[in-house]
Amino acid sequence: MSFGEKEGAVGYLVGRENEGLPHMFTMMNEARQKVGLQGLAIAERAYQAARDYAKERVQGRPVGQRSGDRVTIIHHPDVRRMLLTMKSQVEAMRAFGYVLAADVDLAHKHPDTAERQRHQERVDLLTPVLKGWCTELGVEIASLGIQVHGGMGFIEETGAAQYLRDARIAPIYEGTTGIQAGDLVGRKLPADDGRAMAALIGEMCAVETQLGGSDNLDFPAIRENLAVGIQALEQATQWMLQTIRRDPDAALGASVNYMMLTGYVCGGWQMARAALVARARLNAGEDEDFCRAKIATARFYAEQILPKANALLTAVKSGASTALVLEEEQF
Amino acid sequence: MSFGEKEGAVGYLVGRENEGLPHMFTMMNEARQKVGLQGLAIAERAYQAARDYAKERVQGRPVGQRSGDRVTIIHHPDVRRMLLTMKSQVEAMRAFGYVLAADVDLAHKHPDTAERQRHQERVDLLTPVLKGWCTELGVEIASLGIQVHGGMGFIEETGAAQYLRDARIAPIYEGTTGIQAGDLVGRKLPADDGRAMAALIGEMCAVETQLGGSDNLDFPAIRENLAVGIQALEQATQWMLQTIRRDPDAALGASVNYMMLTGYVCGGWQMARAALVARARLNAGEDEDFCRAKIATARFYAEQILPKANALLTAVKSGASTALVLEEEQF
Repeated sequence: MSFGEKEGAVGYLVGRENEGLPHMFTMMNEARQKVGLQGLAIAERAYQAARDYAKERVQGRPVGQRSGDRVTIIHHPDVRRMLLTMKSQVEAMRAFGYVLAADVDLAHKHPDTAERQRHQERVDLLTPVLKGWCTELGVEIASLGIQVHGGMGFIEETGAAQYLRDARIAPIYEGTTGIQAGDLVGRKLPADDGRAMAALIGEMCAVETQLGGSDNLDFPAIRENLAVGIQALEQATQWMLQTIRRDPDAALGASVNYMMLTGYVCGGWQMARAALVARARLNAGEDEDFCRAKIATARFYAEQILPKANALLTAVKSGASTALVLEEEQF
Repeated sequence: MSFGEKEGAVGYLVGRENEGLPHMFTMMNEARQKVGLQGLAIAERAYQAARDYAKERVQGRPVGQRSGDRVTIIHHPDVRRMLLTMKSQVEAMRAFGYVLAADVDLAHKHPDTAERQRHQERVDLLTPVLKGWCTELGVEIASLGIQVHGGMGFIEETGAAQYLRDARIAPIYEGTTGIQAGDLVGRKLPADDGRAMAALIGEMCAVETQLGGSDNLDFPAIRENLAVGIQALEQATQWMLQTIRRDPDAALGASVNYMMLTGYVCGGWQMARAALVARARLNAGEDEDFCRAKIATARFYAEQILPKANALLTAVKSGASTALVLEEEQF
């Protein structure tokens, strides 16, 4: 590379002098949201490929049948579990990404100043979660896509292995998962002493209440698990706010677990909202197949994915005691 | 390839006629244990590489310091969490693998017939868990090894990316994770109506009891989390035994979650045993550094890894309601 070899190099000032770092972060915050969406996008593509393969690949017979026609692998219960693990998290991430994108628009364009500020606080709080959580899930889901393909996923013919390789950079660039989590617990969460997070939890609780009183058989399970998840987020947030100034090492040692917990509960909140919309549309006689699938997928997320939040709460609360005790030589 | 092009092909009967499949499974059960160890081995190598890199790579300052010397990344709390996540699971897997290998020897060579049978039942029960759980963890740990390396892990220079590619085949060949889990819940667990599993849980409970009454500050946390894990394994086992004949589709839909739950609790059991041995050796004034690291690592596993068992219990119990409800067209 050579800059201005003959005529000398000319530099142009972008933005104002001595404000390069804040200007850079304008780009960086946009980029973080976009890389989060990259995690989602690769997960979606991995899901589509795995689903199509599962509908095509013939292997084995239905459970309990020892003779008769062999079936496509989408008939096998564990393949369904893998596909729903992919599908439910993809849908949760997508809803979360859309909602945060709407917050970005409203933070810029809402006519009311207080509303603009409220949406900006939401964007500030959740941008590291969108980036960190969606890119970590992108890796997990692309890996599961290989698993659905079996041996065909490990070789290159299907493309499944390429998705995992592509997904693997997203938790690293534009700030690693650890950097996002550090930003969340070191800056964004304590910036207003947890007010933006409290507002978010308040909205989640309102959705949880709306899940009650339905005769839909899936709703009690969705509600119960969402309530447990919200409670985990509340307790982890309290722990984090108490710890970040008193023992920042402990808080940072727990930060990725806290960020993932926040992501899973945000996903549960969005899937619950989607289930509520689907119920209303079912009652209006619209899109029956799609709406029933949405509610079943929301229930799967609530029962099989959201319980991770409680496991992460235990890990967060133990952050102080375990992550930092070993000497360098003991590793 | 051409077999006996000139003189014709000669086949040799290996073993007895019409018993090819049982003979093949002699090889296959050996192979399953070895592939489980392959998951462990790649995880160990990924850990060593990540640890060495973290001790060498200089980036950033200690938490809260804005000037002064930059430090190696092993000083950062989240890097320590990642390394301990790798180290603690590697140690849990290794202990589990050794114990099962001892069971194999005792099943062959113990002078007492009843003892031989008891150890064989343990081997039969846990071989699919060793294969399934250790290979799934191998992928996760190799992926975390890339993350510790940051951008250097994504490119080829460090070898970290190769470990993930190598690890990715292990949950697929010699029977996928789903096949191992199906073997566990469809054959091994119900073969004796859960007797071998009940014996295993009994041994775990005895270890949990031994953790009591110590003045070591780490032991209450290890004990509490092990107790929760054992209870999760008990409840999931009950659910599985009740479900496998009544609704095999539901049981198989929950089978991988059940197998992973079993693996995590087996790991917690082994880490607790290791902590007990380390305490005894500390009391005898032996290997202080190693023994303190072992106990701290066992506590990390108990507080940060073992809580996954409870999340998996919720998923297992919901297996019937969620994995199988969608029509093929709804995916």
